[in-house]
Amino acid sequence: MTNTQERYRFHLIQAFSLPETAQYKLRSMSGTKEQAMMNYQDVAHLLADTNWDLHVGALATHGDWPVETREEFMMVGVNRLPLVRQACLSKKYNGIVLLGGGDPGFAESREIGRRFGVPVTSCAHSQMHIATMLGNRFSIIDISETHNMRMHDLVIQYRFGNNCASIRNINFPLPRPPYEEGFKLQDQRDKGLRGERSDMLEAAIVESLIAIEEDGAEVLILGCSAAFWMRPLIQRRLHEAGWDVPVLEGYSSAIEHLKLLVNLNLDASSLAFPVDHPKKWRRRKFI
Amino acid sequence: MTNTQERYRFHLIQAFSLPETAQYKLRSMSGTKEQAMMNYQDVAHLLADTNWDLHVGALATHGDWPVETREEFMMVGVNRLPLVRQACLSKKYNGIVLLGGGDPGFAESREIGRRFGVPVTSCAHSQMHIATMLGNRFSIIDISETHNMRMHDLVIQYRFGNNCASIRNINFPLPRPPYEEGFKLQDQRDKGLRGERSDMLEAAIVESLIAIEEDGAEVLILGCSAAFWMRPLIQRRLHEAGWDVPVLEGYSSAIEHLKLLVNLNLDASSLAFPVDHPKKWRRRKFI
Amino acid sequence: MTNTQERYRFHLIQAFSLPETAQYKLRSMSGTKEQAMMNYQDVAHLLADTNWDLHVGALATHGDWPVETREEFMMVGVNRLPLVRQACLSKKYNGIVLLGGGDPGFAESREIGRRFGVPVTSCAHSQMHIATMLGNRFSIIDISETHNMRMHDLVIQYRFGNNCASIRNINFPLPRPPYEEGFKLQDQRDKGLRGERSDMLEAAIVESLIAIEEDGAEVLILGCSAAFWMRPLIQRRLHEAGWDVPVLEGYSSAIEHLKLLVNLNLDASSLAFPVDHPKKWRRRKFI
Amino acid sequence: MTNTQERYRFHLIQAFSLPETAQYKLRSMSGTKEQAMMNYQDVAHLLADTNWDLHVGALATHGDWPVETREEFMMVGVNRLPLVRQACLSKKYNGIVLLGGGDPGFAESREIGRRFGVPVTSCAHSQMHIATMLGNRFSIIDISETHNMRMHDLVIQYRFGNNCASIRNINFPLPRPPYEEGFKLQDQRDKGLRGERSDMLEAAIVESLIAIEEDGAEVLILGCSAAFWMRPLIQRRLHEAGWDVPVLEGYSSAIEHLKLLVNLNLDASSLAFPVDHPKKWRRRKFI
Amino acid sequence: MTNTQERYRFHLIQAFSLPETAQYKLRSMSGTKEQAMMNYQDVAHLLADTNWDLHVGALATHGDWPVETREEFMMVGVNRLPLVRQACLSKKYNGIVLLGGGDPGFAESREIGRRFGVPVTSCAHSQMHIATMLGNRFSIIDISETHNMRMHDLVIQYRFGNNCASIRNINFPLPRPPYEEGFKLQDQRDKGLRGERSDMLEAAIVESLIAIEEDGAEVLILGCSAAFWMRPLIQRRLHEAGWDVPVLEGYSSAIEHLKLLVNLNLDASSLAFPVDHPKKWRRRKFI
Amino acid sequence: MTNTQERYRFHLIQAFSLPETAQYKLRSMSGTKEQAMMNYQDVAHLLADTNWDLHVGALATHGDWPVETREEFMMVGVNRLPLVRQACLSKKYNGIVLLGGGDPGFAESREIGRRFGVPVTSCAHSQMHIATMLGNRFSIIDISETHNMRMHDLVIQYRFGNNCASIRNINFPLPRPPYEEGFKLQDQRDKGLRGERSDMLEAAIVESLIAIEEDGAEVLILGCSAAFWMRPLIQRRLHEAGWDVPVLEGYSSAIEHLKLLVNLNLDASSLAFPVDHPKKWRRRKFI
Repeated sequence: MTNTQERYRFHLIQAFSLPETAQYKLRSMSGTKEQAMMNYQDVAHLLADTNWDLHVGALATHGDWPVETREEFMMVGVNRLPLVRQACLSKKYNGIVLLGGGDPGFAESREIGRRFGVPVTSCAHSQMHIATMLGNRFSIIDISETHNMRMHDLVIQYRFGNNCASIRNINFPLPRPPYEEGFKLQDQRDKGLRGERSDMLEAAIVESLIAIEEDGAEVLILGCSAAFWMRPLIQRRLHEAGWDVPVLEGYSSAIEHLKLLVNLNLDASSLAFPVDHPKKWRRRKFI
Repeated sequence: MTNTQERYRFHLIQAFSLPETAQYKLRSMSGTKEQAMMNYQDVAHLLADTNWDLHVGALATHGDWPVETREEFMMVGVNRLPLVRQACLSKKYNGIVLLGGGDPGFAESREIGRRFGVPVTSCAHSQMHIATMLGNRFSIIDISETHNMRMHDLVIQYRFGNNCASIRNINFPLPRPPYEEGFKLQDQRDKGLRGERSDMLEAAIVESLIAIEEDGAEVLILGCSAAFWMRPLIQRRLHEAGWDVPVLEGYSSAIEHLKLLVNLNLDASSLAFPVDHPKKWRRRKFI
Repeated sequence: MTNTQERYRFHLIQAFSLPETAQYKLRSMSGTKEQAMMNYQDVAHLLADTNWDLHVGALATHGDWPVETREEFMMVGVNRLPLVRQACLSKKYNGIVLLGGGDPGFAESREIGRRFGVPVTSCAHSQMHIATMLGNRFSIIDISETHNMRMHDLVIQYRFGNNCASIRNINFPLPRPPYEEGFKLQDQRDKGLRGERSDMLEAAIVESLIAIEEDGAEVLILGCSAAFWMRPLIQRRLHEAGWDVPVLEGYSSAIEHLKLLVNLNLDASSLAFPVDHPKKWRRRKFI
Repeated sequence: MTNTQERYRFHLIQAFSLPETAQYKLRSMSGTKEQAMMNYQDVAHLLADTNWDLHVGALATHGDWPVETREEFMMVGVNRLPLVRQACLSKKYNGIVLLGGGDPGFAESREIGRRFGVPVTSCAHSQMHIATMLGNRFSIIDISETHNMRMHDLVIQYRFGNNCASIRNINFPLPRPPYEEGFKLQDQRDKGLRGERSDMLEAAIVESLIAIEEDGAEVLILGCSAAFWMRPLIQRRLHEAGWDVPVLEGYSSAIEHLKLLVNLNLDASSLAFPVDHPKKWRRRKFI
Repeated sequence: MTNTQERYRFHLIQAFSLPETAQYKLRSMSGTKEQAMMNYQDVAHLLADTNWDLHVGALATHGDWPVETREEFMMVGVNRLPLVRQACLSKKYNGIVLLGGGDPGFAESREIGRRFGVPVTSCAHSQMHIATMLGNRFSIIDISETHNMRMHDLVIQYRFGNNCASIRNINFPLPRPPYEEGFKLQDQRDKGLRGERSDMLEAAIVESLIAIEEDGAEVLILGCSAAFWMRPLIQRRLHEAGWDVPVLEGYSSAIEHLKLLVNLNLDASSLAFPVDHPKKWRRRKFI
Repeated sequence: MTNTQERYRFHLIQAFSLPETAQYKLRSMSGTKEQAMMNYQDVAHLLADTNWDLHVGALATHGDWPVETREEFMMVGVNRLPLVRQACLSKKYNGIVLLGGGDPGFAESREIGRRFGVPVTSCAHSQMHIATMLGNRFSIIDISETHNMRMHDLVIQYRFGNNCASIRNINFPLPRPPYEEGFKLQDQRDKGLRGERSDMLEAAIVESLIAIEEDGAEVLILGCSAAFWMRPLIQRRLHEAGWDVPVLEGYSSAIEHLKLLVNLNLDASSLAFPVDHPKKWRRRKFI
């Protein structure tokens, strides 16, 4: 254990990639791994003790815009599975992080990872688990009606229904043809990070405050990776307003969650993620 | 409404198709629609007032064996989505039935159907809804460890956790390389339907009885379409044993569920299955 | 199955009847079955393939006004049971619909029907089941404080507590001595159906919007049969406001629910509705 | 408060009465109030500080046998309501106890009592409330399949689903034509109280032990008033077996529950049991 | 039973005592037992048939101010346990009331009492149990942020999560160095009881109304013993506003709850509060 | 971040200490920190990158035996709080681990830690959180009836009721006067670690298997720190039996949980653990 660089050999896989020429893309698909990773500055210190690779994601087959609908989430989810299997087969990694907000292909990736003993974490799942370590109820600050319902599905699937105070929609949908407004998103981010007024950030602040004061949220998490950049800014603004409430985002949560699993030599229970023809099987399962 | 044949214009879509030469296939992929539909005799009377087409399913991309793992369910689910969209676009149908036990691609298909006002039903979802009309708790009689956990996922997603008494594993996995035992399944079915002793049926009877007597099930449903043939036989055997307990299977449940939706001119709530950029959006969602 | 008129032989039973001279009555107790059925125009197309009889309901013993309190619901419920038994004994019917909003005598009628293998459906029960097929949570738009609590009781008994976003009171109580205001109800209905401004309808629209925007309702159902006339009007107004949310009412829901049960040859589980001295009994029941 | 006889002026109302000549009756309908009350010896000390009357119950209209089915419970429930109202109108009483195991007419009686400020208690309801004061989960030891499902309904309606470990059936149904076996019940009671072997008591002991050891019950309650006599005997036998588990029965529970309410000047919330046309009404109710 | 003074031999134990010289104390620690008991006039009639002693509470070790934080509640809780044991050992009492709002040391005191067969009640626990006898959901009107979270903990531990509509903060924290504002509390009480305007009472009225109209509370309970004096005043004000909603406070609830237990000869289930090395043990516990 | 020894500055605090001469003690209270920590060999690799101190625990005031009852847990809990505060005040640590099985003083320690921004973890809490990352339901393998109910309390308080399949009692109580059998515990441990037959380990294996096969556990956790030594042995034995189920213990779970919090710069939400007189307060809390 003298060399922690050896301890964490992580493969980070983006949800999907778009052609560099795609009009509606939100992030760079090329350059160094640091450049290809959104908000790298926010997680650099967490990756410092980690030997990590980044895959820019399988080329999208649903179109050349980011995913928001259930159908799109399923399509990029399926496309990501071969990458997960390859990473496991390569034996280069002892953990995989699925980047992206709505966890496309996560349950299926865990099933694959289970066969190799390789833990897999993902942004919404890790945020929800960590949020319940900190307070009784969390709210999800999220970007659009369709994305909200994806998050809704995940809260149900991950069984955090009793812990979720609300999902709050700031209504800044992802870029998508034929809508021009989607382009606002990057603009909003740039302004926000430069310290200028960002309507998107302001909307997130408003919904965060209502989540705390009305819905009973004691922790906030962010739904879409295109909103993760706001984490430190929301945190600071809430603090200035007198609310000492943790705000999480997905990348850091998934990375640290993975380290915990690697250190404890855990991935998932074979009973929850069985292989076909397991040595032992149960006659009865409860919900 | 004088002609009920006009009332129901249904498209039935199999979960996937395998090459006719596939060693591990469980059903015919060719012939008439009646021949291509497993256990047609059990639903013929329900389709009699219906104008229906059958699609044998998209050619499987996961391998040439039936689906059982989460990964396989996701892959065939994605492959089915274009067929759903085409059916909607064709304007030939006022309802779509997704055949197959574990509902691959169901939520995504409903999302597509919603945009066209076309209701979509699926075998597990319909069975669970109908089961709760009949009794307080249902058990799922199901075939294998991996398939059980798919059903488990669906119970959670469909929010029937409080109504599900148990999932019972009879341990007759689907055929899959390199296992020879999977071939038992068809053999078991043939024997059972001929009135000979079928170990699979006997296992299902045993688990059904325990589900009733131990787990508190008041209704039974069947998990995998490869087990649907047992419905009338289990029903009769339970009746002979003195238990007057409804036993459901997926095809009949999904077909009649769809008729109900068509007659009431319903498909799904736009709030549960929103389109992108909807006219109205909600600031807050609860779980 | 060539003659669907033979398929559905339904007996529709009103909740109660009042003397034709009753000052506080809301509907006609005489005339043809079509005249005696409120809002017949809304369900005529659903009854077209059905061979149906209507019973105007047992003469009320609680007074000559419509039911609203728990006591009144119990009294008309008991009075309806002999009609259900007679209908079953007559062997003329393969299904019974209990008309009326608060389901008086429903569980008891199902128990009777179970002994004859005759399915029984009722307006609140069917609406709640269908609502959960369409969205995650429903709200009940309802007429008065006492009626609200009857609906509240039903949500609990039918175990839809997790699916009910709220019960919303538009505060248009049923006519009852010595209150004059109850007479408004019919007036409001007439105005509403003529396309004039109806305060009752306006109140229902307001509460529907709040149910959607504040309470998280994704489907709306109507509590009292005296409010069922508003279904198409609320639906249209919500649509005009940009909300594509299903609105249900009781008669159509109960009729189509019954068809589903008849087609699948189902009524209820004997374990949920046991006969006395059943052949088999369970040592243990769970909740 | 010097005279506690003045403090408690209670009216105890039996669930129903049968003609003295009824072949299937379980208790005397005549004699002194002490004679007409089953197991008076078990509650005499609790009534000693109480000024109490007993009504033998309205004459049964369902038949001349005890109630067990949902239909019968509803019929005797309705018959009891006028007695409740008369008791309230008489102003002689400051509390009403509904005797009998399955609480027929309880919710409706509370509604009536609420209008007069007179608290009403009932045997199952009081037992469940007191049971949850003592331990985390209770089981119901009960007599027959149909009666079990009545108790099941009550657990749901009273919202004790999370506290009910199980309902256990000892299968000693009430007397009812044409069954001879029902006559066993009185015989079993006589034997049990005389200290002879009673199969009914032995069955109750067996189910009580399983409820504790298998189902997780920490308190036991009794379902049917025809089983209340077993309370001290079960208690003693469990104690002898080393289990120090409280066993409740209905009469004592309902009487002491009522004293608590009288002393605190409470009956029920008007929001849970509203009158028609209340001064204030709520726009929204939650479940 | 001729002498009810003999029936109830109660020991009432305050949560803690402060030195008479303590600047931040809220109540007298000396004088007669009637003087040492806050709001004695509100419970005098309930104690009239009771032979009771009062212990002013163990001298506080956390500081010379009232308790509000979790740490302080734990410290006074531990200090109270020897008093509970002494009271049991003295054999003078057949019941113990733990005075004070947040139930410090309650579960542990019940464990001690169980060994002696002596029931123990406490203010929050008794209020919650009684509240659910009266309506579906209660709200807690409480004084400060930290105290609110103590009440939150208790709602969870007592398993009333489904019955608690909300905890409402009127923000009148207890006196505590270095804050001067805490002194308001006594002042507010004096004004309120004299019939003058009390900001604390006004805040409680506002929050009570919102609890009823927005949160769905059907019963109100009070969190902190320093707020118990408001019970009759809130009750009256709500009544004047047209809301007939029960308002509870802790002392009367705990006293009457204890009488019920004494009369039924109950304290707690040994399975919920086991002794070490019990005669019988369970292999399995459920939650 | 070049020196991870600087990253983690942890203070580990035992639940309590007993005099070295105590007859009933289970572990050494002196020697090096490695010697004073039970099963150090199981966590040595996790502490290797950590700069850690160990406090042997406050001297027990309840007696000279290990804690098992609720009262004892409360007493040692209170005694630990000053140690937590001192550790925070010293500014030497960025995280605190509370050693010991039943989490004495955990919520209160978090409250203290929150004021200093120092995260605190504890053995049961961390195990439950990590267990739910791995599977749907966990069982707790635990040592005695009283300790079981402490674990039961914790499951409720931490809100893992829906995730806890069962608590299983292997019935090896801690040493306690006057019982001799408690001495078995150390003997059982020694035998088990030497690879000889240990009845305690065998009992744990049996209960683990039943938890998996009957109760539906998908992950196992250990209740008492005196059972933590069995973790690798149970894990191996289950694996040999064909069950690939994660088994957790408290020390490793709490240590890695703490690292995650430190890395993410998190401790707890101020809304869940408020300070007195916070800058902002909420009018309403939900459960």
